[in-house]
Parts: sequence; structure tokens; C-alpha cells
Amino acid sequence: MSMNVYLSGEIHTDWRERIIDGCKAKELSFSSAVTNHAASDAAGDLLGCEENNFWRDHKSAKVNAIRTKTLIEKCDIAIIRFGDKYKQWNAAFDAGYCAAMGKPYITLHSEDIIHPLKEVDAAAMAVAENTEQVIEILEYLSRDY
Amino acid sequence: MSMNVYLSGEIHTDWRERIIDGCKAKELSFSSAVTNHAASDAAGDLLGCEENNFWRDHKSAKVNAIRTKTLIEKCDIAIIRFGDKYKQWNAAFDAGYCAAMGKPYITLHSEDIIHPLKEVDAAAMAVAENTEQVIEILEYLSRDY
Amino acid sequence: MSMNVYLSGEIHTDWRERIIDGCKAKELSFSSAVTNHAASDAAGDLLGCEENNFWRDHKSAKVNAIRTKTLIEKCDIAIIRFGDKYKQWNAAFDAGYCAAMGKPYITLHSEDIIHPLKEVDAAAMAVAENTEQVIEILEYLSRDY
Amino acid sequence: MSMNVYLSGEIHTDWRERIIDGCKAKELSFSSAVTNHAASDAAGDLLGCEENNFWRDHKSAKVNAIRTKTLIEKCDIAIIRFGDKYKQWNAAFDAGYCAAMGKPYITLHSEDIIHPLKEVDAAAMAVAENTEQVIEILEYLSRDY
Amino acid sequence: MSMNVYLSGEIHTDWRERIIDGCKAKELSFSSAVTNHAASDAAGDLLGCEENNFWRDHKSAKVNAIRTKTLIEKCDIAIIRFGDKYKQWNAAFDAGYCAAMGKPYITLHSEDIIHPLKEVDAAAMAVAENTEQVIEILEYLSRDY
Amino acid sequence: MSMNVYLSGEIHTDWRERIIDGCKAKELSFSSAVTNHAASDAAGDLLGCEENNFWRDHKSAKVNAIRTKTLIEKCDIAIIRFGDKYKQWNAAFDAGYCAAMGKPYITLHSEDIIHPLKEVDAAAMAVAENTEQVIEILEYLSRDY
Amino acid sequence: MSMNVYLSGEIHTDWRERIIDGCKAKELSFSSAVTNHAASDAAGDLLGCEENNFWRDHKSAKVNAIRTKTLIEKCDIAIIRFGDKYKQWNAAFDAGYCAAMGKPYITLHSEDIIHPLKEVDAAAMAVAENTEQVIEILEYLSRDY
Amino acid sequence: MSMNVYLSGEIHTDWRERIIDGCKAKELSFSSAVTNHAASDAAGDLLGCEENNFWRDHKSAKVNAIRTKTLIEKCDIAIIRFGDKYKQWNAAFDAGYCAAMGKPYITLHSEDIIHPLKEVDAAAMAVAENTEQVIEILEYLSRDY
Repeated sequence: MSMNVYLSGEIHTDWRERIIDGCKAKELSFSSAVTNHAASDAAGDLLGCEENNFWRDHKSAKVNAIRTKTLIEKCDIAIIRFGDKYKQWNAAFDAGYCAAMGKPYITLHSEDIIHPLKEVDAAAMAVAENTEQVIEILEYLSRDY
Repeated sequence: MSMNVYLSGEIHTDWRERIIDGCKAKELSFSSAVTNHAASDAAGDLLGCEENNFWRDHKSAKVNAIRTKTLIEKCDIAIIRFGDKYKQWNAAFDAGYCAAMGKPYITLHSEDIIHPLKEVDAAAMAVAENTEQVIEILEYLSRDY
Repeated sequence: MSMNVYLSGEIHTDWRERIIDGCKAKELSFSSAVTNHAASDAAGDLLGCEENNFWRDHKSAKVNAIRTKTLIEKCDIAIIRFGDKYKQWNAAFDAGYCAAMGKPYITLHSEDIIHPLKEVDAAAMAVAENTEQVIEILEYLSRDY
Repeated sequence: MSMNVYLSGEIHTDWRERIIDGCKAKELSFSSAVTNHAASDAAGDLLGCEENNFWRDHKSAKVNAIRTKTLIEKCDIAIIRFGDKYKQWNAAFDAGYCAAMGKPYITLHSEDIIHPLKEVDAAAMAVAENTEQVIEILEYLSRDY
Repeated sequence: MSMNVYLSGEIHTDWRERIIDGCKAKELSFSSAVTNHAASDAAGDLLGCEENNFWRDHKSAKVNAIRTKTLIEKCDIAIIRFGDKYKQWNAAFDAGYCAAMGKPYITLHSEDIIHPLKEVDAAAMAVAENTEQVIEILEYLSRDY
Repeated sequence: MSMNVYLSGEIHTDWRERIIDGCKAKELSFSSAVTNHAASDAAGDLLGCEENNFWRDHKSAKVNAIRTKTLIEKCDIAIIRFGDKYKQWNAAFDAGYCAAMGKPYITLHSEDIIHPLKEVDAAAMAVAENTEQVIEILEYLSRDY
Repeated sequence: MSMNVYLSGEIHTDWRERIIDGCKAKELSFSSAVTNHAASDAAGDLLGCEENNFWRDHKSAKVNAIRTKTLIEKCDIAIIRFGDKYKQWNAAFDAGYCAAMGKPYITLHSEDIIHPLKEVDAAAMAVAENTEQVIEILEYLSRDY
Repeated sequence: MSMNVYLSGEIHTDWRERIIDGCKAKELSFSSAVTNHAASDAAGDLLGCEENNFWRDHKSAKVNAIRTKTLIEKCDIAIIRFGDKYKQWNAAFDAGYCAAMGKPYITLHSEDIIHPLKEVDAAAMAVAENTEQVIEILEYLSRDY
């Protein structure tokens, strides 16, 4: 089964590269939001700079949402990664977006945040603790029957 | 315009009561997840207790999701509250769920978390800082034209 | 047949009142955006004032969109009025919104703007020139078979 | 990210060509309504001529709507251009159509029509003033993550 | 089970009255297109008379479609009647409309037109030969379990 | 929260009555397929008897599907009961139907059929072993927040 | 614009071949139901013969519906042809199916059946009298802008 | 007509291979759940082993559902096979899932289980008794018109 995999969440570690490099199945392709933090925060500046920080964030977030919304709608499955820093509300937002669209997703996070993520995990199709598990699941799903 | 308002998020302050008490328009009705923290965490125990904490959380979260999913689908608008404690990923998850369904929502949070909430705010129809503003908007929306 | 009628467009003449007053069928109910021009433009000010006019308009328009989107989704038919002044892009926007949702609408405008409105009229179920015609159509549609 | 971009609105300036020529990313493809004004107005004549101007416009507009509706549904993003002449209700109609379908769009117009376009801009994902900005946004969105 | 029943098709016999009068279950309600042939054909005249018969028919049919489309979308089940006269393409059109929407329908026609109606019957949930059978089915469906 | 509960599956024990009698919350209402086995099997006979058993079953099943499909679409939650006799493929079919529609359901079955029901349980929001548990969950879900 | 064109209706004249042969645009592709009348009527016999004509028709019509439903859902536009013989309820059924799905269609029929086809034509995007007109419209729609 | 065929149900006989080998039409492609019984049951173990059998089954079933749900949504038609052993509730579940999505399916089973499968067969587009019939139907459906 060919699958397009959307990689959502944490941008400060190399989890995306590890999954992409680890997957050998040619049936798998990957997509993602723009993960360059500075470029992402400045996306709206292309349309003129804002003095007010709220509106600067607002403009950039809407430009980036064009990409994330389109990629989520086109993917077959999303991997949603919660790291150990920052609020990461955008990752939980993507999970809710997937859930409402009936798009299957797998969460990827360590054991110590199981309780606060229970609603997000409850709507997931699988919960992984490390990238090796994600790779194994993706390879399993994409193999011939 | 009559409106059913779903109140999502923080359960440790009285923001729900303040909005409900503050709204005088008879066209407004309100709904919410079960906000009794202990009862909510124990919802799955009704179906038999689990030794493993992950599965206890999982069962409870799925039982609660029956209610939240149904209420979100039935509401006309959601108010999504982010407080100053805890991870609150379920609130961001509800926001994403609303966004994907085309259900309008208003976020309610203080100014200091504008940046981490930028993706959630970008898909919101309005961003409020206090319950008085929410009440004013709801009253404005529900008045005769 | 009972019908909820959404009245969209021009806010500077009394066409809404004439239709509502002219319809005698008790099966008909009516709804509308907030038509008080000043209140509508200031809707976003309830959430804090903006110095930049673009963002003031933006905030107000999004608050008002909560109401218009909800009412369009709840209506059975929309009447979309184009007067002889102003740009009235919001009326054409509502027409496109109805068309995409499969919501039937009737346009109401004078003969001299037939050509520029051809795309809007092409997706309409009927084109009326005056409120008397709209009233007759609504009464016809709502009668017993 | 590959993206199909639908170019809607003004047909009297070369804004389409400037965007298409300016975009270097091979992931971008473009589509549009028939922009030959005379051919577009005469589209219905292929099915027999009409004496009545209303019906001539009606027939042509419906034939053209086959194309525009199909292209909007197939696009990933629409650019909606408002120039400084004519009513351009069809552009606002396309914007409403996109909004109802959840199709992201960027408006392109000068600063002096911000107020009358506030409802159309409120549902847009971005607002640009010139084609250079549109090109930058499209290049940004289509780059690798 | 309460059910709203839409009665589509033939307008030259009293089959509608016989079904409505025959159904005793208070859970059943009925709706229909305007069945006054002259009024239905003249529906568009309310918006100004047309010299060209095609456009007169076109205007009237679109006005009537506001009603039929709305009632089909609101019904729980449609009864689609084919009599022994006329083309009755509108009845087959309604059947296709129901099929695409997943709205269940029962066809009502005599045995001698089974072959030409095979595609319409194939998508029906039941095929009845007389109004007594329709009444029995409706009563059966609406009873307590 | 008011909830309409659809009771699907086994018709040879009194589990429906026990749930209905056990639920005290006035916010709960219940619906079900026709559970009279003989009447259900004979539903199609109302439209003329069939000699061939396959077609008799086919006609009856389609008549009954009008009711079950409509009730599932109208319910807020389904309880799907698997007893210890018969094939009960219709119960599993209802579960799949609910899953595809995003309608939450709770399965009700004894522990010894956990393995063959794993796909059906995996898409359920909760798994109950007895009617007391179902009653507790429904009461919990329908209470005030 | 590339377009997949579904050709529905009359199977006793060569209108399909004339349209396919007449269209030179490489952007156009065509599909159709099985138009071999005998094979189409016998489609269900592959699953075992039926003595009862109703059920033979029923089985064949359902097998053929797999193909027609799939092709209609995949097409960009349908041409629906009404000839001068037979009931052709399947053509009107396809038109209703397209209408409910928002799939644009063009009817193709002679002037003398305008009145009985008024509901079908009212939901069409264009009405053609001959295959030359259909070819011209398809070539027009598929050209570069 | 090219068709993607999803093969659901029984995994203990070679019916899949017989259909795939028997179909000569190059327009046909096939997909399936993972049919290696042991691998399928152990799918969830990739994410960590469970002591409790219910949760082991649960985890594996959800991982497998990622694949089955995706393949059903991508297929044009499903063949759903009921053998003579085991409960096979997953096959009936897939049928219900297809029915709710409007995805056509053909059941494949012997004559002796016609009665318990009547609800599943009633929503099918065809009922086959052996793989030869399925092959003939698929070849018929995929041929040129």
C-alpha cells in the first residue's frame, strides 16, 4: 500500500529525518510543515511587516496554515510528535483536525506525558514512544498483503 | 439568533459560570464536557478497572469523547479557554476539531501566550482576553438584526 | 412548507422590512446579519481597539462572519439584494457561499446591473426585480401543495 | 509541496502572466477561467443565439461556470484579484465559493478597497497588495520543508 | 419512528390523498411539490413573463426546484410514483437525486413498466404496485419496535 | 446532554428493556429496529410474496434497512449487542456503518468473544460486558457538567 | 483544462461516437455505461439466472449501477442524451444523481421535448440540440484560458 | 473502466489469489488487509507488548484499521468474502463501512448462509457464490463500453 505520511509537531529534534531515513519501503512518501523556525515565524512578513506582535503571528500562522491544511488533507496518515519542551498546541491542533476529518494518526511521545495527552491519544490509531516503532508500523502497513 | 455555545478547556477556574451568568440573552444556551476532574478521569472505571495507567486514561478519554464530540457537533460556536496551568492539549485538540468541521470558535486566553497559540488563534473567529469580552460578543451575535 | 429565509446584502434601504411585512404565510421566518452599520463596523472593538484600520475591519468582519455563516447554514433559502450604491462584495460573497453549499438563493436587483451580475444570477434559482416578486415567490413556495 | 493555483478575477491587466512568469518553482501549476472577454460573453451563443440579453448572459455564464466550478474544486489554492474598475462581483462570488468549500485563497488588491472587501479578506488566508508578494508566498509554500 | 414522507411524481391521480388518508400512524407526516399543474407551470411568471417557451419553462422549473430540493433534503423517505401517462422524467430525476443523497425511496408503479424502470427500481429500497402496499410499509416502518 | 440512543443487535434476550428501564435520566431516548423476528422476516411480503427464499429475504431486509439506516443517522450513540447465539452479522454491519459515519457506539458482549470482535471493538468508543455498565455510562454522559 | 466526460442516455444512435470523433482536444477523455443492450440486460445472469423477470432486471441493473455510479463520480461533466424513443428514465435518473452530487451536466435533446424535460434542463448547466453544439462547448471548455 | 478492487474477509482459503489470477483485464488492480494471520494479530506488539489480551487485540486491530480504512476509501469496489468458519464479524463490519460510504461491494458466499447475511446482501450491489462469478463481473465492469 502506498502511503503519504504527514509529519506534524516538534521541530527542534531530528525525529523527522530519522523516520524518513529509517523507512526503506518505496511505497512511503513524506510531507511536513515548513520546519525552519525563523522562516515560519516570518512567513507573513512577505506581505508587509506588522508592528503589533499579535498580528505578525496571526499573518504568519495563516500563511503556514495554507500549507499544513493542504498537506493534512492530502496525507493518508499523520505522525504527531510531542517533545519535552514548549507548549506544542499546534501539534494537538493538528491531531484534532485529523480526528474530525477521519484521517488516521499516530502520536509519538515519551511515557511521562501520557496523562495530559489522553484525549489526543484516545483519538489516535496508535501511540509510539520512539521513531523505531513508527518506522516499524509504517513498514508493516505498506507491505504487500 | 439563537446559539448553542460549547465551553471547552480549563476546568480549574470559574470562567464557565461567569460567562453563563453574564449572558442575559435568552437565545443563548450552553454545554460542556464533564468538568468534575475526578469523575472525568474515572469515567472508564465504570467499565471495569485497569491496572495499567495508560489504558485507564485511554478508556476514560474515549468515554468522555462521546460527549465532547457530540456536543461540538451540535453547537453553533465554541469558546476555547486556555488557562495559565497544565498542558491543555485537549483544548487545542478541540480547536482543531472545530476548525476541520467549519465550526466557528473564539479563544479565551491572556496576552502572554499569544505566540505559542498562534496556529490555534489563526483559525479562530475571535480572540478574547477575558470573560467580559466573550459575553459582549455572544450578546452582540444573538441580538435581533 | 415552512422556510427560514436569510436576507443578505444592501443595508441602506427598507427592503428587508418590506419583505417581512409583506409575507403573510406563517410558515416563513426571517434572519439577517446585523444591519446596524456602525455596530457592525465596531463589532471587533468589543475585543480591544485597533489602531490599524485593516485589522479593525478584519476583527469586526470575522465576528460578524460567525453570525452570517451560521445563519446561512441554517436557512432554507437566501434572498440576496444588490442595491445601486457601494461595492457590495459581501453580497456576492454570500451568493458564492450559498452556491457552494447547495443552498438555493434568489437575487434581487434592478435590470441595469444584469450584465455584471451574470455569474451570480447564473447560480441563483430565481432573479427578482422588486420585493413584491420576492414576496409572491415565497408565498407560492410555502403554500400547501 | 506541489500546488495547483487557480487565478480568479480581473481580466483587464496582466497580473496572471506576471505571477505565472514570476514563479520558478516547478511544483506550481496554474489554471483560470477563460479570460478572453468576448469569447467568454459569447460562450452560450454556441448553443443558439438569444434575443433577450438577460438569457444570453445567463447561458454564457452557466457554460463558463462548468469550467470555473471544476477548476476551483481541483485547485489547492486560489488567488482572487480585485482591480480598480468594474463591479467584479464574480471575483467575490468565487471567494465565497472557496470559503464554503474550505479551499484556501489569497486576495490581491490595493489598499484603498480594504474596507469594502473586509468580509472577503476576513475569510482569506492572506491579503496581498501586489503580484510580487503573491509570488513570494507561493514560492514559500511550495518549497521543501 | 417518526418519518417525514416526500411524495414525488404523478399529479393526475389521487394517489397522494389515498396514502395520506390511509396512514393512521401519527408518526407520519407528508410533503410534496406544488401539484396544481397550472400554478406549477406558471411559477416563473411571478418574476415577469417570457415570450420564449423554453425560458418560461426554465424559470418555473427553477422556482419549483427550490421547493422540491428542500423537501427532499428534509424528508426521511420518498415515495416516487410513475403513472401510465406522460414522460415523468421529473420523477426519475427525483429518484436519482435521492439515490445520490443516500435518501431511501420506494417506487410505486404498475408491473408493465418494470423493464424501463429497472435502474430506478435497482436503487430503491422497495417497489410497490399500489397505494395499499405503500401504506402498509409506512405503517410497519413507523411502529414501535 | 440529551441523547438519542440506538439499540442494535441481539433480539432474543431482554437487554433492550433492561437498559431502557434502568436509565432514569430524562435526557435519554431510545430507538431500535423492529425486533419482532417474524414481522421483520416478513416485512417484504407486504409488497407481494416471493417463492425464492433469497429474494424474500432481500425484500424484507431492504424494507427494514429504511428504518435502521434512518434511526442510525438520527441517533447520537448506538449500543451494539452481540449475544451468544447466531451469526449476528447485521450487528457487525451496523457497527461498520456507524464507524464510517463517525457515529459513536458502545459494544455490549461477554468476554469470551473479545478476539473475534477485535475489529468491531477497536472502532468502538467503549466496550461493556453487561447492561448495568451501559446504563452507568449513559447516565454519566447525559448528566449536567 | 483536462476533462473526463461521461456520456449517459440513449444507446440506439451513434451520438457517442460522433462526439468522441468530433472532439479534437487531447484534454478530453470519455466514459460510458456498457452500451451493448443485450449484454447490459444480461449482466446479472453472470451470477445465476432468474426465472422472474423483475429479479433478472434487478440483478442486472445493480451490476450495471456499479459501473455507472463509479464513472459519474469520477467524471468532470456528464452529457445526458434523450432520444425520441423509449422511456429513458435511466437518463433522467443519472441527471438527478449528477444534480445532487453537484456534478455539472449538459442535456442533449430535440426541441419538441423541452416541456417534459424542464426539471431536468433546469438543473443542467447547458442544453444542446445536436452533437455539434456539444463538441463546440467541450472544445471551448477545455481550451487554454 | 479502471477499477481498484478491495478484497475483504476470509483469510484461510486462496479465494484472493484465484480472483487476482483469474482477472485478465489490465484495468483491474487489487488491494487487501494484511492476510498473514500471525502478523496481523501481532501488529500492535511493535508498539510494546501487552499482558492483557483485550488490549493486545485492541492495539493490533487499530494498527490494522489504518490500512483497511485507507484501502476501503481508495477502492472503487470491494469484494467481501464470508467463508464457512469463524465469526467473520470484521467482514460484516467492512460491508457496513462500505455501505455508509456509498462504496459498492459484492458479497461472496455459499448459499447456506443467505438468511443470516440478508442485511449484508441487501446493501450489496451483487451476490456471488464463487470466484468465477466475481471474475466475470469484474471483467464485464472493466471492459470498454
